[in-house]
Amino acid sequence: MSSSLEAFFHPRAVAVIGASRDSEKIGYALVDNLQHCGFKGQIYPINPKSPEILGLKSYASINDVPDEVDLAVIAIPASQVVAVLAECGQKGVPGVIVITAGFGEIGGEGRKNERLLVETARQYTLRLLGPNCMGIIDTIIPLNASFAGGMPLPGHIAFMSQSGALAQAVLDWACAEGIGFSRFVSLGNKADLTEIDFIRAWGEDPHSKVILAYLEDIRDGAEFMALCRQVTRQQGTPIIAIKSGTTAAGTRAVSSHTGSLAGSEQAYDTAFKQAGVIHAASVERLFDYSLAFAYQPLVAGNRLAILTNAGGPGILATDAAERAGLQVANLAAATINRLRALIPDIASALNPIDVRGDAFEDSYDMALRLALADANVDSVVVILTPQKLTRVEETAQVVARVVAEMNRAEKESPTSNQSPAAVSIDLPLTPKPVLACFMGEAHVKAGISILQEHGIPNYAFPERAIEALQAMWQYRQWLERPLVQPPRFAFDDDRLRQIFAQVRNDGRVALAETESHDIAAAIGLKVPKAELARNREEAVALARLIGYPVVFKVASPEILHKSDLGGVRVGINNDLEARGAFDLITARAHRFAPGAQVWGATIQEMVTPGREVIIGMSRDPQFGPLLMFGLGGIYVEVLKDVVFRIAPISEAEAQAMINEIHSAPLLRGVRGEQPPDRDAICQALLRVSQLVHEFPEIVELDINPLVVHEQGAVAVDVRMVITPE
Amino acid sequence: MSSSLEAFFHPRAVAVIGASRDSEKIGYALVDNLQHCGFKGQIYPINPKSPEILGLKSYASINDVPDEVDLAVIAIPASQVVAVLAECGQKGVPGVIVITAGFGEIGGEGRKNERLLVETARQYTLRLLGPNCMGIIDTIIPLNASFAGGMPLPGHIAFMSQSGALAQAVLDWACAEGIGFSRFVSLGNKADLTEIDFIRAWGEDPHSKVILAYLEDIRDGAEFMALCRQVTRQQGTPIIAIKSGTTAAGTRAVSSHTGSLAGSEQAYDTAFKQAGVIHAASVERLFDYSLAFAYQPLVAGNRLAILTNAGGPGILATDAAERAGLQVANLAAATINRLRALIPDIASALNPIDVRGDAFEDSYDMALRLALADANVDSVVVILTPQKLTRVEETAQVVARVVAEMNRAEKESPTSNQSPAAVSIDLPLTPKPVLACFMGEAHVKAGISILQEHGIPNYAFPERAIEALQAMWQYRQWLERPLVQPPRFAFDDDRLRQIFAQVRNDGRVALAETESHDIAAAIGLKVPKAELARNREEAVALARLIGYPVVFKVASPEILHKSDLGGVRVGINNDLEARGAFDLITARAHRFAPGAQVWGATIQEMVTPGREVIIGMSRDPQFGPLLMFGLGGIYVEVLKDVVFRIAPISEAEAQAMINEIHSAPLLRGVRGEQPPDRDAICQALLRVSQLVHEFPEIVELDINPLVVHEQGAVAVDVRMVITPE
Repeated sequence: MSSSLEAFFHPRAVAVIGASRDSEKIGYALVDNLQHCGFKGQIYPINPKSPEILGLKSYASINDVPDEVDLAVIAIPASQVVAVLAECGQKGVPGVIVITAGFGEIGGEGRKNERLLVETARQYTLRLLGPNCMGIIDTIIPLNASFAGGMPLPGHIAFMSQSGALAQAVLDWACAEGIGFSRFVSLGNKADLTEIDFIRAWGEDPHSKVILAYLEDIRDGAEFMALCRQVTRQQGTPIIAIKSGTTAAGTRAVSSHTGSLAGSEQAYDTAFKQAGVIHAASVERLFDYSLAFAYQPLVAGNRLAILTNAGGPGILATDAAERAGLQVANLAAATINRLRALIPDIASALNPIDVRGDAFEDSYDMALRLALADANVDSVVVILTPQKLTRVEETAQVVARVVAEMNRAEKESPTSNQSPAAVSIDLPLTPKPVLACFMGEAHVKAGISILQEHGIPNYAFPERAIEALQAMWQYRQWLERPLVQPPRFAFDDDRLRQIFAQVRNDGRVALAETESHDIAAAIGLKVPKAELARNREEAVALARLIGYPVVFKVASPEILHKSDLGGVRVGINNDLEARGAFDLITARAHRFAPGAQVWGATIQEMVTPGREVIIGMSRDPQFGPLLMFGLGGIYVEVLKDVVFRIAPISEAEAQAMINEIHSAPLLRGVRGEQPPDRDAICQALLRVSQLVHEFPEIVELDINPLVVHEQGAVAVDVRMVITPE
Repeated sequence: MSSSLEAFFHPRAVAVIGASRDSEKIGYALVDNLQHCGFKGQIYPINPKSPEILGLKSYASINDVPDEVDLAVIAIPASQVVAVLAECGQKGVPGVIVITAGFGEIGGEGRKNERLLVETARQYTLRLLGPNCMGIIDTIIPLNASFAGGMPLPGHIAFMSQSGALAQAVLDWACAEGIGFSRFVSLGNKADLTEIDFIRAWGEDPHSKVILAYLEDIRDGAEFMALCRQVTRQQGTPIIAIKSGTTAAGTRAVSSHTGSLAGSEQAYDTAFKQAGVIHAASVERLFDYSLAFAYQPLVAGNRLAILTNAGGPGILATDAAERAGLQVANLAAATINRLRALIPDIASALNPIDVRGDAFEDSYDMALRLALADANVDSVVVILTPQKLTRVEETAQVVARVVAEMNRAEKESPTSNQSPAAVSIDLPLTPKPVLACFMGEAHVKAGISILQEHGIPNYAFPERAIEALQAMWQYRQWLERPLVQPPRFAFDDDRLRQIFAQVRNDGRVALAETESHDIAAAIGLKVPKAELARNREEAVALARLIGYPVVFKVASPEILHKSDLGGVRVGINNDLEARGAFDLITARAHRFAPGAQVWGATIQEMVTPGREVIIGMSRDPQFGPLLMFGLGGIYVEVLKDVVFRIAPISEAEAQAMINEIHSAPLLRGVRGEQPPDRDAICQALLRVSQLVHEFPEIVELDINPLVVHEQGAVAVDVRMVITPE
C-alpha cells in the first residue's frame, strides 16, 4: 500500500501518548487493544506519572523512548496536543493518530488549534489521522490502534467511517453477524488524512476486496471522483458509500433554474454514479452489498435463477427482482427437462425452481448445479425455509461444496471437474455468484454458520439478497461502460476572458444578455442575431438591419428575469411598433427595477419555433460544475423532469443525459412530427460542459431555451453569473 | 370473536386425524404441539393402527370419540380426505383444518377434489381451514393446532400467511427477535375460510393490536376493501399487508390507454391505500412496522425528535426522516433552553438532540422527558451507540421508566405525575410513541432486552425506526381523512340499458362512437353535437345543420383508433370539403380495415380548444373498476403521469386524483393562463365512477380527451367496451 502511509499500515513500534493504568480511560483501552490484537512490534506507553502500564515499561515523554517509533497514538487533553505533536515531529515519528476531541468540531478556538495541528504536522512532514477519531484497526498486520471494544473478525472488507460512534456500533453488530474486516479506519475530523488517502491505499490492497465508506462530507470532489474512477475501474475494487447529511441550502446560489433544482444530495448522487461508487441508502444495505462483493465473484449479467423449497419466498424474490431491474432467467429447455428428470415430484422446474418443501439436500445439489450450468443464468439465490423434513446443515454443506467446486473448476482444467452428484453436471468455468437466504433463526443457525464459513453470504430475507445482486449488476454495468474522454473544442478563449474581465471591471457578477450571447457564440453555439440599441432611433435602424419581425428585450445587467417585469416584446413588425416597444420596455424597467442600469434595448432576430430545451449549470461546493438538461417550459418548471452530470462529460454521457429524462420520447418525434436535431443538443451540452469546466469563474449558467430545429439549434436566452474576482 | 368461527378460536376438544407415533410425521408434531402448548381442552388422536399415541388414548375413527369434538385437524393422504371430512360432518364437528396438500395447488384432479371438499363442508355446515396449510396457533387460548416447530412468544400481533413455509421461517426468526404473537393462521389454499374471515374476527379481538397479512391473492376485492375499511377505521385496528406475485398480464384487457397503464400491482396498491391497509414492501418491514403499532401509542403528527449520543446516526435518522416525509421537529425555545441548562456540555440542544458520547443515563432521562413534553414533538427516536462511558442497561431502564410514567400519566390525574428526575418535567397527558435504536450487538444486547420487556421496540439501524414511524403517520392520516360517501347522480338508466342491449344484439362488444356519446350524455356529461351520416349527401346536410367548421370521423364499431388509419378530418369548412372528407375517410377505412363494418361518417361539432385530460377505467379481476385520471396527449402517452382509484369514489377522492398527478400545476393555470374548470373534471370523474360501479358490464372505458374549458368540459372522444353477455 501507499508508502507515505507506511507508518499506519506497517508500523514496527507504536507509542501510546496518554497511556493509563485506569481501565476507565481511553489510554488504557489503547494499550490493552495493542497488546491483545496480535501486534508483533514494540509498544511504548508514554505517561510521566506511571513507570509501568499493563506490564510494559512506560516513558515520561516520547523523547525518552530509546528506539525509533513509527506510529504515535495521542490521547491527552486537547490543550496539550499541539506541543506533544511537535515532540513527535522532533523524534521523527512519521505517523500520528490524534484520538483527542475538542478541535474543529467545536468551532472557534478548536478550529484554530486544528489548523495549528496541521501546520505542525506539515513542519515535520509527518502524517496525521484525526483528531477526534477512534483510531485504526487492521486484521492483516495485525494491529489495533483504537479504543474500540475488541478486535473485529478478519475478512475482506475495508471500512472507513467519519463517525467513530457509528463505527463502534457497526463493528459490534458486524461481529455478531459474522462479518469480517481487513482494515478499518476512523477518519475523525480529517485534518490531514482523508478518505482520499485510504481509498488510494486500499484500492491496491490485495487483502481488501471491497471498500466501504460512511462519509459526512467530501472536501475535494474532483479528486475524489478521479480516484474512485481509477480504483473502481483500473483496480477493479468496488467502493460502496453512504453519505449522510446535506449542505445547508443557504450556501448555494439559487438565482437560476438549475440552481433551484440542483440540491447537494443531487450532486453527491450524480458524482457517485459518474465515479462508479455504489450509493447505499442505509447502513444495513452498505453491509448487505459488501458481503456479496467481498465473498462472491462479480455477476456477469442480470439473469437470476431462484432456487427454493417454498413458493412464497420464491414469489417475494421474483417481485424484488422485478423492482430491482433484474431478470428472472428463462432457463434453457435442457435445464428444465433435466430438473424434471432428476428431481422427482419437483413443484416447479421453471424459475423460481421449487424443489418442494420435503426436498433433501440432493435436490438442492442437482438443482443448483443445473442452474449454475445453464448459460442463461448469471447468478443464483438459494432460498431455504426450515420445514418438517428439511435438512438444513446438509443442504448448507451441499451449497458450499458446489460453490467450491465451481471456483476450483475455474483454476483447474475443465476435465478435472468431478462432480460427486449422481449424474455429472458440468459447472461453469467462470464462477457465478451464489447468495443464500436460509430463512428463520434457531432452525437455520447451524446451516448459516456453514455457509458463512465457506464464504456464501446469507440474507435474512429474499429482498435483501436481491438488492445485493442489484448492486453487483450496477457495478458490472459500470465496468463495461466505455470510459471515453470528453472531446476538446477550440474556443475563442481570448474573447471569453475579455468579456469576463469587462464584467468584473464594471463591478458586476451577472452578464448582460449581449455578453452572454457573445460567450455562447465564442464556444460555437448558434445565437440569434442581436444588437444593442441605446436609443429609440438606433432601435429602429437595427430592427431594419436585422429584418422585421424582431424581438425587443430590455438591456440591463441587473435585470435577469426580463419578462417578469414586462421587459420583452415579441413580433415587432415595423418602425412604428419598434419605437413604441423601445419606449415601453425601458419605461417599465425604470419603473419596476428602479436603480438598475438600463442600457437600452436588445433588438433580436425572431427565432423559428422549435422544441425548447434547457441546458444549465450550477457550481456545487464539493463537486464543481453540475450540468443540467431537460425540456424547457413546463417540463422543467412544473414537472422538474431534468437530469444532471458533473462536467466535463463525454459524448456518450451527453447522449445518456438526453435519453434519461422522462420526456425523452418527445425528442424522438411523436405523432408524426419531425424529430428535433438531437445531435445539436449533444454538441451544445458538450460545449457548455467544456466551458464550465475550463472557466471555474462561471458559477451559474442557464440556456433557456435552446430552441432545437430539425437541423441545428439556437441558444435564444442565455444567462450567466460569474464570481466577483 | 366471530361466532361462526368459535370452533377455531375456543375449541374445547380437538381431534387429530392422522395422529402418529412416528416423530418424523406431521401427525406426531400436531399431537405433540397440542400437548405442549398449554391447551386446556381434550385431545383425541385418531389412528386406526395405534391404540395410544404420545400417552393419549387413540381412536380408530372420529366417530369412535365418545364426546363432542369442536375442531378436527386432518393430516392423512389426500385421497382419503373427502371421506374423512364427511365423517367429521356426520359427527357434527363444526371446524376442520385440512393440513394435507395435493389439492387445488396441483391443478387438474386436485382442483376437482378441492371442490368436493368445499361441497362436503357446505353440506354439513362445517367451516374448513386449508387444505395445504400448516394450521392455527393461538397464544391467548392457548392452542397450537399446527405442525410448526414450537410455540411463538405471546404478544399483540395477529399474523396470517398464505405461505406455510414462509410462516415457519418467519415464526422461527420472530422468536429469536423477541417478537410475540396473539394469533397465527396459515391460510393454505383458502378453499373455504379466507383472509376475510380472520380479518373480521381479529378486527374485534382485544388481544390483537395489529393484523399482519402475507397474501398471494385476494379473491373478493370489494369485500376485502369494505371489511378492511371498517376494521382500520371503526375498530381502529391497523392492518399491514405484503402482497406477493402479480396476475399474468395475459388475463387483462389492454385495448385502452387505461388498460395498458393499469397493472395488477397498481390495482392492489390503490385498493390497499383506499382501504387503509399499510402496504409493506418487504417481510422485514412488515415486522418492523408491526412492532411500533403493537407496542406504542399511535403517532398524532409527523414531527419527530431524535435523541442520540453520536452525531453520525443522528444525521442518518434526519436524512431518513426527510425521505419518509416526516419532519424533524423544531423544538420549542423553552425546550432548547432547558436542555442547555440541564445537560452540561450538550453537543446539540437542537434536533437531533446530541447528549454527547460520554452521556450517562441521566442526560438521556432529562432529554427524553423534555422532548416528550415539547408540544412541537409527536414522537421520539432514542439512538444509542455503545461508547466507552455509555451505560447501556441503565439507559434502557431510564427510557423504559419515562415511557411507563407517560403511559401512567394518561390514566391517572395530571397532578400524580411525579417525576423522579432531578427537576420536574411534566410528561404529556397523551402518550407519544418512543422507538429505540440501540446500535450494535454484544455491547447493547442486555439493554435491548430491557427495552423489549417494557414494550419499546428496538431497531438495528435508525432508518428502520424512521420507516416504522412513517407507517404510523400514514395510518394516522388515514384515520383523520373524512370518509364521505360517493354522491349519487340520477342517470337515464333505461337509455343506458337500451344501448348495451343494442350492442349485444349486434354481437358486438365495442360501442360505436355515437353510442359512447349517448352513454356520456345519459350520465350528464357534455358531448359535442354529432350525427351519423350514412352517405355523402347526408354528410353535407348534417354538416350544415351542425354548422361549419365540423369534424368528420369514420363511423365503424370495429375501428377504435380512427386517426391511426386516417379516419378523422378536422376543420371541414364547406360542402365541397365535406364531400371530399366523407369519400376519403370511408375509402381509407375500407382499405386499411378490410372487413370492418363501415356505417358512414360521424359529423361532429368542432370543440373549442382547451386543456385536454383523460378519464379512463379498466376492470381489475380482483378489485373491479380501476379509475384513471391524467392530462391527455403526451402526459399520458409519454410521461404516463396518471393516478388511479377503485370506483366508486367520493368527491374528496376525485379532488385528490386531480391534485396527485405531477402535472397538477397545469390545472391551476400557469404563465397567466386562465385555469381550466377543475370542478367540471371532478364532476366528470364522479359520474364516470358511478357509471362503472353500477354497470359492471363495462369492462373498459376511455374519455380521451375530455376538453376542459374555463367553464365546463366536453367529452370529445369516448370509447367503451362491454362484456359479451
